[in-house]
Amino acid sequence: MREVAVIGIGMTKWGECWQKSLRDLFVEASLRAMDDAGLSQIESLYVGCMSGGLFNGQEHVGPLMADYLGAGPIPAVRVESACASGGVAFRQAYMEVASGMSDIVLAGGVEKMTDVDGSEATYALGTAADQEYESFHGITFPGLYALIAKVYMKKYGITNQDLASVAVKNHAHGVKNPNAQFQRAITVEEVLQSSMVADPLHLLDCSPITDGAAAVILCPMEKAKSLSKKKPVKILGSGHATDSIALHDRKQLEVFASATIAAKKAFSQAKIGIESVNLVEVHDCFSIAEICALESMGFFAPGQAGKAASQGLTALGGKLPVNVSGGLKSKGHPVGATGIAQIIELVEQLRGEAGQRQVANARIGLAQNMGGTAASSVVHILEAC
Amino acid sequence: MREVAVIGIGMTKWGECWQKSLRDLFVEASLRAMDDAGLSQIESLYVGCMSGGLFNGQEHVGPLMADYLGAGPIPAVRVESACASGGVAFRQAYMEVASGMSDIVLAGGVEKMTDVDGSEATYALGTAADQEYESFHGITFPGLYALIAKVYMKKYGITNQDLASVAVKNHAHGVKNPNAQFQRAITVEEVLQSSMVADPLHLLDCSPITDGAAAVILCPMEKAKSLSKKKPVKILGSGHATDSIALHDRKQLEVFASATIAAKKAFSQAKIGIESVNLVEVHDCFSIAEICALESMGFFAPGQAGKAASQGLTALGGKLPVNVSGGLKSKGHPVGATGIAQIIELVEQLRGEAGQRQVANARIGLAQNMGGTAASSVVHILEAC
Repeated sequence: MREVAVIGIGMTKWGECWQKSLRDLFVEASLRAMDDAGLSQIESLYVGCMSGGLFNGQEHVGPLMADYLGAGPIPAVRVESACASGGVAFRQAYMEVASGMSDIVLAGGVEKMTDVDGSEATYALGTAADQEYESFHGITFPGLYALIAKVYMKKYGITNQDLASVAVKNHAHGVKNPNAQFQRAITVEEVLQSSMVADPLHLLDCSPITDGAAAVILCPMEKAKSLSKKKPVKILGSGHATDSIALHDRKQLEVFASATIAAKKAFSQAKIGIESVNLVEVHDCFSIAEICALESMGFFAPGQAGKAASQGLTALGGKLPVNVSGGLKSKGHPVGATGIAQIIELVEQLRGEAGQRQVANARIGLAQNMGGTAASSVVHILEAC
Repeated sequence: MREVAVIGIGMTKWGECWQKSLRDLFVEASLRAMDDAGLSQIESLYVGCMSGGLFNGQEHVGPLMADYLGAGPIPAVRVESACASGGVAFRQAYMEVASGMSDIVLAGGVEKMTDVDGSEATYALGTAADQEYESFHGITFPGLYALIAKVYMKKYGITNQDLASVAVKNHAHGVKNPNAQFQRAITVEEVLQSSMVADPLHLLDCSPITDGAAAVILCPMEKAKSLSKKKPVKILGSGHATDSIALHDRKQLEVFASATIAAKKAFSQAKIGIESVNLVEVHDCFSIAEICALESMGFFAPGQAGKAASQGLTALGGKLPVNVSGGLKSKGHPVGATGIAQIIELVEQLRGEAGQRQVANARIGLAQNMGGTAASSVVHILEAC
């Protein structure tokens, strides 16, 4: 298999984009990525999209995007793995280039979630859980993650303040990200005073409903310098794993086994140790999720990530900067696009182009994207060249 | 890239499966495919599914199926390309094995369409068209294919009887397929007396609403004989292409450019000519679709496929047997599973195990699966070993 690089990145400003449709968002992000790479043609296209059907009455999103991008008749595939759809799209594109099947592949993600009202959006997101044994009975994702938080808090004795500190940190990062939905700092008190959604998760422990798209361009490492004007970023490792779809089938709610296995595979392929990683983007759909994901991948011992944010360990300038993009919490979470935006953050950081968010001397970054309550996880490790 | 073989096949009986859920269907087909191959483990999994969200309130179908198949924590990816989802799932699995990334990959497809009523199913299927410029305005697929049929009939002077003959032929084939939804012969008169759905398409010109699943196992050709007890069938070529999602952007409605390009790519990779093909499975979602697909791929000159069925050219025993499985018309059309079932038919034929449907001396078969009004097409060419 060939070594693969990312040579172009592009995303839209995330938020409530009333004037733009699903296709508008995807095309805007894709053209920016192609422009960033300095390319006018691609050979193949992947679209991560969780539910074009329920959010927009539009499936068959692959050919639609190829068409509106003016890239047809190239192959275009939509992949779906709930909120990990973007990460999986990136991995499929990586495999296509690594295999030698194609040279220039675009991996993008998109979701337009504000075309439906809040209860419909909650229903659509709930289709990522087990329809027969979870969502059918009325539980939605805040409730599922609240169960995980309760178990973790009881086991390790962390407080609501510790949970809130994750959101506070990610909002502080998001202030420095011009594409973030919320560029506004918040305090622990504000989190604890915001509405209770599902005990112990307050409104400000939860990532928002977002419209947005993101896209990256991949090519073989050996051709990166001749194809593009931009400094390539190399994909060192890619891991993907699944777990039981329903929480009741897990031995330990607070351990995301899919993240553990996906990270192990990615590190094994990358042939580096976890101590080499300079920054991490993890899937903080809820504050508790960041904590569990960091521990599950081995960045902290069990019980140790719970206080990492309140201790300042995971902030920009801390020991291990986590979600310097603002994370899902502050940057927003257009579910199909999230995994691609994590890659974009790593590429900007590893190119040294992250401006106010720049992690000093960033050489190696890791992105972890997950679907449902971590029934699927995708982990990628990228290196500056 | 490595040569790849199909070493296991399995499907459910297709029809209205009130007692089985989406997951039940997929697991049943997958276990049959694994049993057929003589394997108890797979390394990776693809699921073609058009709209688990709209039909079943269930997205995140990949991890769900890995979980219920007892195959977790393997990577599991759902791919969607409307009614071509199965064909695209097969192609992604093919690339993963060809690349050397995995050795044993399951490609399956599933759709459970009778959990919703007829108008909801029509809405769900309509999401394969252009939501903003087609489906929003009320047109559904029978109407879109009726436009194509009108253009073809006017241009080439074929009759309603010629169209009906396609359905009559495929029903005659379906009588011999124990997994088909309709194992019942029909006459041209019956087609013409059935309700008019969208002029010129009668009810019996249209494929039905179906529940069902299908799965196949792929492995590297070099390992096929040691891994499996079954005679392997080799994948000679794979092609995938897209076209404008909306009909109004096409120069010629009756030419499926995506099928033309996908077939050209597949033949180019296979290094064989079209005259080497002994049998074809094409995407006859409507009787007119079989005619246009055959011409678009070059099996008949423009205008010549219109009378092929009424002239007996495409029947079992004819010059080029087409849809000996019964096709979508008689076998049924659980949209995500259709592309995989086409591959299963080819494998049974090339193994010489198709019983009453056996095409004499079948050595090379081609499957063409498409989404929407051919906004996406996937073509595979398989060879007996």
